Amino acid sequence: MKYIQSLQNPQVKQWKKLLTKKERDRSGTFLVEGYHLVEEALKHGEEVLEIIASEKVGVPPRLDVGSIPVTLVTEEISNSLSDTEAPQGIYAVCRQITREDVLQDAKSFLLIDAAQDPGNLGTMIRTADAAGIDAVIVGPGSVDIFNSKVLRSAQGSHFHLPIVRGDLHECIGKLKERMIPVYGTALEGASLYTDLSVGDSFALIVGNEGNGVDKDLLAHTTANLYIPIYGKSESLNVAVATGILLYYLKK
Amino acid sequence: MKYIQSLQNPQVKQWKKLLTKKERDRSGTFLVEGYHLVEEALKHGEEVLEIIASEKVGVPPRLDVGSIPVTLVTEEISNSLSDTEAPQGIYAVCRQITREDVLQDAKSFLLIDAAQDPGNLGTMIRTADAAGIDAVIVGPGSVDIFNSKVLRSAQGSHFHLPIVRGDLHECIGKLKERMIPVYGTALEGASLYTDLSVGDSFALIVGNEGNGVDKDLLAHTTANLYIPIYGKSESLNVAVATGILLYYLKK
Repeated sequence: MKYIQSLQNPQVKQWKKLLTKKERDRSGTFLVEGYHLVEEALKHGEEVLEIIASEKVGVPPRLDVGSIPVTLVTEEISNSLSDTEAPQGIYAVCRQITREDVLQDAKSFLLIDAAQDPGNLGTMIRTADAAGIDAVIVGPGSVDIFNSKVLRSAQGSHFHLPIVRGDLHECIGKLKERMIPVYGTALEGASLYTDLSVGDSFALIVGNEGNGVDKDLLAHTTANLYIPIYGKSESLNVAVATGILLYYLKK
Repeated sequence: MKYIQSLQNPQVKQWKKLLTKKERDRSGTFLVEGYHLVEEALKHGEEVLEIIASEKVGVPPRLDVGSIPVTLVTEEISNSLSDTEAPQGIYAVCRQITREDVLQDAKSFLLIDAAQDPGNLGTMIRTADAAGIDAVIVGPGSVDIFNSKVLRSAQGSHFHLPIVRGDLHECIGKLKERMIPVYGTALEGASLYTDLSVGDSFALIVGNEGNGVDKDLLAHTTANLYIPIYGKSESLNVAVATGILLYYLKK
């Protein structure tokens, strides 16, 4: 087992770079933190490249690391890799899985247009997982899908179903070729969601917290849906709206 | 219009104390921050006691302050009252409205047991508002309902419907006396939520992020409900679950 003590070690510098989207994109990898996420990565992800553990905590016996290389580091190095207030001292470097075939094979989709808040994006991914959706496709205007807060809010769902980046215009075109209905969400010119009769295959597009789904996308959907507001609030949180719609569509 | 320049001014110290639950409880008031919340307070709340504005921004004409006293303060004082990264320089001190009659008059209720995360609690309140629920009752184990992050996530719903603190055991008893069915949420020993046929009156209890609703409460409900997990995630975010259930119950 390797042991690193210096913050200046090139390997440590490389891990720290994974806190940036630029380096995650360049390397095609990402860093997950904490027992739960590392456990989920080991359980479901085929692509764990290495484990990093603080010497203070080590690798707990419940984690089945198999032949994956483990590096022990000092508490100081461990904390430098964390963006939480109470670091748990355990990390995994994972390979980003790109699945080009998602648009050909999957039957139910969540398409996310320009979600800005990492907590919301992670919660939407977790909700799609719970609802049994086959794949999540995230448009270019959204926060990075491998951002550490997104990973934390998604609670391991990144390892449960394909979460990929994609151009949503292209997605709509390809889904329609496959005769899969694509539903947008909108406040105006839309149909009451409960009036819809749904089949097994569908794609739902949910949008930006402030502005909703891009009008250019809404113009190309099969239909657009709205959730009624019965009280005085102006709107629903986008992750809550996603939950209401996905559970209605999956029913 | 009053103008305060010193951070040591006793009035400024008093406002700053409103960032603590202790002082909010003692004074029976709370502080809201930002254009949207101040506007909602003025529009719907009968209980705005005073407005505080940074001299840099003043009181925008769109805010109808009527005869409510306004104090201008320096940018430094204004920033000291904020807990956001980009303070908007406008605040209102509001009276906490206590409504003892809620349990007698309202027909639909959201009961919240031990929600720890202020963002979740605020989102649940916003969701109850959107779903047209009559009143929200928050149990003693939850984060304070007038916490600034709760206020921000609820986006003004505190001024739209009664949000009160209460003992949930007592609530269940009183609601049952009124023949209002009380539904808990649980993962085990519960019924599929879509099997329920619902009337106009109901109360839904949602719970803690990690542990769910207290077992002692679940033992006294009319029925307990669960939302199926079709995928591999262990659970739904509590605010998302609240949205799915409230929109089903209101249907």
